[in-house]
Amino acid sequence: VKLWGGRFEESITDAVERFTESISYDKQLYKHDIRGSRAHATMLAKQGLMSVDERDSILEGLDEIERRIESGEFVWRTDREDVHMNIEAALIDMIGEPAKKLHTARSRNDQVLTDFRLWCRDAIDTILDAIKYLQVSIVTLALKNEGLIVPGYTHLQRAQPVLLQHLLLAFVEQLERDAGRLSDCRVRLNLCPLGACALAGTGLPIDRFMTAEALGFTAPLRNSIDAVSDRDFALEFLSANAITAIHLSRLGEEWVLWASEEFGFITPNDSVSTGSSIMPQKKNPDPMELVRGKSARVIGDLVTTLTLCKGLPLAYNRDLQEDKEPVFDSVKTILGMLEVSAEFAQNISFNRERIEKALPAGYLDATTLADYLVKKGIPFRTGHDIVGKSVALCVTKNCCLQDLSLDELRSISPVFEEDVYEFLGAENAINKFCSYGSTGAACVATQIEYWINKLQINL
Amino acid sequence: VKLWGGRFEESITDAVERFTESISYDKQLYKHDIRGSRAHATMLAKQGLMSVDERDSILEGLDEIERRIESGEFVWRTDREDVHMNIEAALIDMIGEPAKKLHTARSRNDQVLTDFRLWCRDAIDTILDAIKYLQVSIVTLALKNEGLIVPGYTHLQRAQPVLLQHLLLAFVEQLERDAGRLSDCRVRLNLCPLGACALAGTGLPIDRFMTAEALGFTAPLRNSIDAVSDRDFALEFLSANAITAIHLSRLGEEWVLWASEEFGFITPNDSVSTGSSIMPQKKNPDPMELVRGKSARVIGDLVTTLTLCKGLPLAYNRDLQEDKEPVFDSVKTILGMLEVSAEFAQNISFNRERIEKALPAGYLDATTLADYLVKKGIPFRTGHDIVGKSVALCVTKNCCLQDLSLDELRSISPVFEEDVYEFLGAENAINKFCSYGSTGAACVATQIEYWINKLQINL
Amino acid sequence: VKLWGGRFEESITDAVERFTESISYDKQLYKHDIRGSRAHATMLAKQGLMSVDERDSILEGLDEIERRIESGEFVWRTDREDVHMNIEAALIDMIGEPAKKLHTARSRNDQVLTDFRLWCRDAIDTILDAIKYLQVSIVTLALKNEGLIVPGYTHLQRAQPVLLQHLLLAFVEQLERDAGRLSDCRVRLNLCPLGACALAGTGLPIDRFMTAEALGFTAPLRNSIDAVSDRDFALEFLSANAITAIHLSRLGEEWVLWASEEFGFITPNDSVSTGSSIMPQKKNPDPMELVRGKSARVIGDLVTTLTLCKGLPLAYNRDLQEDKEPVFDSVKTILGMLEVSAEFAQNISFNRERIEKALPAGYLDATTLADYLVKKGIPFRTGHDIVGKSVALCVTKNCCLQDLSLDELRSISPVFEEDVYEFLGAENAINKFCSYGSTGAACVATQIEYWINKLQINL
Amino acid sequence: VKLWGGRFEESITDAVERFTESISYDKQLYKHDIRGSRAHATMLAKQGLMSVDERDSILEGLDEIERRIESGEFVWRTDREDVHMNIEAALIDMIGEPAKKLHTARSRNDQVLTDFRLWCRDAIDTILDAIKYLQVSIVTLALKNEGLIVPGYTHLQRAQPVLLQHLLLAFVEQLERDAGRLSDCRVRLNLCPLGACALAGTGLPIDRFMTAEALGFTAPLRNSIDAVSDRDFALEFLSANAITAIHLSRLGEEWVLWASEEFGFITPNDSVSTGSSIMPQKKNPDPMELVRGKSARVIGDLVTTLTLCKGLPLAYNRDLQEDKEPVFDSVKTILGMLEVSAEFAQNISFNRERIEKALPAGYLDATTLADYLVKKGIPFRTGHDIVGKSVALCVTKNCCLQDLSLDELRSISPVFEEDVYEFLGAENAINKFCSYGSTGAACVATQIEYWINKLQINL
Repeated sequence: VKLWGGRFEESITDAVERFTESISYDKQLYKHDIRGSRAHATMLAKQGLMSVDERDSILEGLDEIERRIESGEFVWRTDREDVHMNIEAALIDMIGEPAKKLHTARSRNDQVLTDFRLWCRDAIDTILDAIKYLQVSIVTLALKNEGLIVPGYTHLQRAQPVLLQHLLLAFVEQLERDAGRLSDCRVRLNLCPLGACALAGTGLPIDRFMTAEALGFTAPLRNSIDAVSDRDFALEFLSANAITAIHLSRLGEEWVLWASEEFGFITPNDSVSTGSSIMPQKKNPDPMELVRGKSARVIGDLVTTLTLCKGLPLAYNRDLQEDKEPVFDSVKTILGMLEVSAEFAQNISFNRERIEKALPAGYLDATTLADYLVKKGIPFRTGHDIVGKSVALCVTKNCCLQDLSLDELRSISPVFEEDVYEFLGAENAINKFCSYGSTGAACVATQIEYWINKLQINL
Repeated sequence: VKLWGGRFEESITDAVERFTESISYDKQLYKHDIRGSRAHATMLAKQGLMSVDERDSILEGLDEIERRIESGEFVWRTDREDVHMNIEAALIDMIGEPAKKLHTARSRNDQVLTDFRLWCRDAIDTILDAIKYLQVSIVTLALKNEGLIVPGYTHLQRAQPVLLQHLLLAFVEQLERDAGRLSDCRVRLNLCPLGACALAGTGLPIDRFMTAEALGFTAPLRNSIDAVSDRDFALEFLSANAITAIHLSRLGEEWVLWASEEFGFITPNDSVSTGSSIMPQKKNPDPMELVRGKSARVIGDLVTTLTLCKGLPLAYNRDLQEDKEPVFDSVKTILGMLEVSAEFAQNISFNRERIEKALPAGYLDATTLADYLVKKGIPFRTGHDIVGKSVALCVTKNCCLQDLSLDELRSISPVFEEDVYEFLGAENAINKFCSYGSTGAACVATQIEYWINKLQINL
Repeated sequence: VKLWGGRFEESITDAVERFTESISYDKQLYKHDIRGSRAHATMLAKQGLMSVDERDSILEGLDEIERRIESGEFVWRTDREDVHMNIEAALIDMIGEPAKKLHTARSRNDQVLTDFRLWCRDAIDTILDAIKYLQVSIVTLALKNEGLIVPGYTHLQRAQPVLLQHLLLAFVEQLERDAGRLSDCRVRLNLCPLGACALAGTGLPIDRFMTAEALGFTAPLRNSIDAVSDRDFALEFLSANAITAIHLSRLGEEWVLWASEEFGFITPNDSVSTGSSIMPQKKNPDPMELVRGKSARVIGDLVTTLTLCKGLPLAYNRDLQEDKEPVFDSVKTILGMLEVSAEFAQNISFNRERIEKALPAGYLDATTLADYLVKKGIPFRTGHDIVGKSVALCVTKNCCLQDLSLDELRSISPVFEEDVYEFLGAENAINKFCSYGSTGAACVATQIEYWINKLQINL
Repeated sequence: VKLWGGRFEESITDAVERFTESISYDKQLYKHDIRGSRAHATMLAKQGLMSVDERDSILEGLDEIERRIESGEFVWRTDREDVHMNIEAALIDMIGEPAKKLHTARSRNDQVLTDFRLWCRDAIDTILDAIKYLQVSIVTLALKNEGLIVPGYTHLQRAQPVLLQHLLLAFVEQLERDAGRLSDCRVRLNLCPLGACALAGTGLPIDRFMTAEALGFTAPLRNSIDAVSDRDFALEFLSANAITAIHLSRLGEEWVLWASEEFGFITPNDSVSTGSSIMPQKKNPDPMELVRGKSARVIGDLVTTLTLCKGLPLAYNRDLQEDKEPVFDSVKTILGMLEVSAEFAQNISFNRERIEKALPAGYLDATTLADYLVKKGIPFRTGHDIVGKSVALCVTKNCCLQDLSLDELRSISPVFEEDVYEFLGAENAINKFCSYGSTGAACVATQIEYWINKLQINL
């Protein structure tokens, strides 16, 4: 018999029970559910809605239930629908009458949201740690490869030379904003729905500020209908994860490219590579492919939950039960993606020689040459055109810009002088960069310093 | 040690193993994987790539493994990554050398797609049955409520009277097209990738037509690279499910509305309703709310897989491992939705009296009145205007159209005559409909007949 | 000839030109593009990269171009691809040589992001105003309907009585969080990419802090590669809009329900309703249906941009050109939704009489009755059961809880006393609510006061 | 005054008019709207619902309106809301009374769906042509590069050698299934809603079979409520486009990779490349980047429309007005993607020399070597291990498999014999493939032949 069974004469069919149960996944809220019940019982006793003895009996019972759950003794029952009913019914089985007072001035509507917000708050803290760990891993990788120049790409075409450190720090910057979004989300969700009851609050003399404080919330939510009906905190959390996932998918793509025979920038260790069941020579950067791939499900989880909430009337609707699985999946996935990316960063080595050999290809110094012309007083657009023609000459001659003779250069523009060769070649080009945030060695060193301090990396 | 471990010196980290494993979910392909291996071994023996004794040993081993899996004795190992490696390695453990020949002229790339296509084919057949079962349930519900007139809505405003049967058959039509999409998808996916190997085929003398036939496929896929790299069959399947889910979400919305106090059209039985943990009077149509809500995850599953495949280069990439969970989830969800909708249809009763009492509200006969004027030779646009004015008069007088006196009607237009009253009131209005596909009683009876025959319903 | 044409010998085909152009939509960035160019030219002159005369000539030219655009004289050319090239080329046409210096130490990569961030910043400010306007409209509607009790729903079933004011304020709370998300997004995006150039910065002596300040940005972005390659600011903005859209879709659903004949809570004015081309009596709440519907495209815009960015390597890729249209569409749509919702709020009246007449249905006081039993010392679970039985009795007798005699109540539980009738009926029930955030009259009055002050509404 | 204005006393506000109008985009349905009206008028006359003179007057008026629209003389009015009302009202302005009969037995609900299905049918036909054109372009590209061997990749790691023709045909196969999905969709949508009227049909003696036939539909839709409320035909169309877009995004990724300096497989002509505003040497494969990027909006369009339809009650709701823009956008985008991909295919050349030089890298022949061992009677798993060790030896020695001496090979396994060298090297490896659908030269030649015939390519 269901705890809500008073006016019901017939029990639900098996198919309906299977379809509507949530215990198979919401049991992972047990810790937060018990924590909420503790705070609630303590408050009810303080407000005279149960006796101190009843409270103690409940608190001891909850301790025992938590112990049983963690030891694996607790039997989860599908006919008890969800984590709340399982725990409450088990408590009634265990301690009897006092347990029947626990649900005073509480509904599953506010209870589940209390649990869920607590769970999300913990999850955000865990993700924030994992983000920082990945940032540290990337900065550490950068430190190991000081001075390495690699081609910078736009359109996947070689564009300008950049310091590897500079490029790696771009990912650290992205992750920092990801953390910022999560922190903002944490502030906004850290309000307490407990006491909103079904949707309207209660006529019993509860103290919502007391429970809110006991559970570490900033304050109780101001409007009981809003408290039980909205899921924007979950949507914001899922959005933040989706954006982080996008960043990681791009890191994945980058590193898969770098590990290819064609790019040949990095060699992953065996410990982060896998082989083929048919092709004996294969050594694949699977973890980063999967990081890229799993970003899709983090996006899917967001879409599911947005679609879920669209067009629902106030207040609680059973549809909203479907809010938890996407969040659980999103959190589990993003944590795996962050962890594995960090491990990958710790287990790759850069093929310095091969990169250096390949660096002359692609006219990476062309823009530096255009800047040279600007310094000589040529308007940029004209300089762009002159360099364009110089490149065209190189293509014909199948050579690099620095291979052109001064005569050849002067045949294109008389402005070229002997000092032009100080601007050509990837290394010269890198040395010229000086703007704030640029790939110039000094600028990058400052940024590296900034992140070492900010992330408190011990060298 | 991994089966692909030849050139590897170090094993993968725990985090990578956890992140890249698929055995936790792809083990549900075991039946299809074994079926594929049986066909493959049989073909290899036929082609002289293994002996008949080796084949028999393999077939017996596979039988035993299947038995162990189904009895729960089989131990799935995460370090063996996936269903294919688990079964192959167990076979090697069990029968030794001959098992090492099973993977001849086969890669996991073509193997997993063979399994997955077989699984999808079975899943489609199951869904087709469930669709038909829901159609039968809806037609049966219609048969129980012959002659019942309900308001038809547009913009959720009362529009015209319709026969409940007519309205219910709209859902049956939708489901029929859903079945059509699945059938088309089934034809398109029923081609065999086995023998495409890693991506390029093989130099060994296999017979792909033989395995294709043994597995019930129409033919082998024509291009080995296409065979291992594309997932459009999954995308098409997920799309078909998403559209079905949209239809069911609309059915859900409809029935949730009808079950509200305000509409009051239906009363669900206790067996398909649930109660509230705090509000003792509540009886909620939860199954249909969840049908509506779960449509979101079917959409999310599609989005996940589309996003997953976007922008991947040929041929197989590890990202594609993520193709299965969304499909498994989509299928499980859509089957639950179909089943529960059918149960709901079998467990509601229409409140005929209450509906009849409420029917006069909303000027459902206004359009029939406009048709009356057309029959009197008034251009429709003019007739529309005349009826608009008549309704405005009713609003002022707070009455129905049939309550207006002939004088009042004639004050708006002299065309009205005594016979106008044969067109007013919901029942009169219904009786006037005669166009093909309309809600007229004769038309609806024909449609009911059509579906009884088509669905082979025994009365 | 393209401005980048130096090394090109052939022009692009018509189909490619049509497919790759962005001028048809990015021209709406013209104001921000010109503003950015002004700041850039001023900085270049200050840094000695152009003369003061050249700067003045450029600034005057930009003024003239802006004037021509706003007067409609400016001719946008598809062969000039985008807003940047159109304006720069027009400037060259107009003032000649000095204009060729404008693109010094600038690439379209950093230029477009400067424009786009400025545009988004303005758009956020506009949306924040529109959100506040809707909040004011809803609070004003609440003020007009003081004391009105309506059924509160869960599962679209009548649950408990609530004050309409309380219910309306739930939407005001949601909108406040929407504003919070946009404000956080604004802070995070208000950093300046200008000077990042193509991806690596520049070797010319520019002052990025000067341009950042001139354009109202907090600071220049720290890493040039990050600056030109990431779009997370757009994703965050689109996410915030999507969540707002979800809230508005729920408001739309609510008001469409309320406007139905069955609910009959509100009557919209003709000024926010539309009619039917065939059914003369129809008066449809179209604006709110469209608010609900248009939420879908705001979600679609987010999905488009997430999918777009997924798996792209660093730094800029042409794919990213597709980032603008979804943002433009999202902003336009959300502004329309907010505006029209406010107008709807201003143009509906509540049917107080009809609501009051319908209020007794649905046992809205059942939970209050359970609270009554708790106050008498009955454990809540037992009280829930007693009330469940009382409701069952009412269903049998087809009456309300307050219609049960004391004897009848006592036959269910002896705890009932004469004072029970002070807890029955919607009005009594409302009067009992007292918890913080509840629907009790005093609580709601406090909240109304809070919002009047916060939104600075003049009464 | 609106055509539906009979009972309305006040006009809608400007904001509502702007928000609810659809004329800005649905005017592109004009041709199909007029075609539908012609068929409808002809039928009405045949059925005696208007005179022959009235019909002729209407048909002439419609001709004139079509002429004015196409010449640009027609003035579209936002206050007339949509394409239907614009044309009908213009007809009334032009020919007076008879035009008021045109809307007899028709609602905008069935009218817009007639237009929209006709439009989609045309769009499908156009896309089918574009798909075929791209297939022909790819096959032609394949024909130009007969015999060219390229590395085949899995995990973006070199896997096995494949013939370029084989690889290109994989895309042709994908496109063929895309065409199949569109054809199935065309069959399913080609049914006529006209005569379903608002939702219930009509009492006037219309002939729905006559209009269906006149408009080229297979038959009228069977159920009037279904006819006006469902949008599954649009969802199916959008899904088919989304899957095609996924295929094209993969083609885009492939060709962007191939055009990179690192891969260096192809050189695009200037006519399909663009340059950089700052980097004079850049030549970017922009069209294919945009093909990849624009796939995102095709997916977004599908998500928008799925989300739109989710949870709507029967029958028509104004939300559904939003169904058209995503379909228009999806069609326009997919057509551009197909066209530009075809142009790209026509404008790239393969760098045969460079590919040949790079071919030895990556142990592409390792699997062929394993097959060699199988042929010698070694079980595949053992063979896989032996080749794995051989590759490890090559890695140590920094050489290719064919560079190992027979002694070295025999030190790993005594099975190796002199004939092993016939299996090593990419060319030898290619020559060994023989399975159906494999990359063996004969198999590929058969496939090329198949497509030349199927696509009727004239050589």
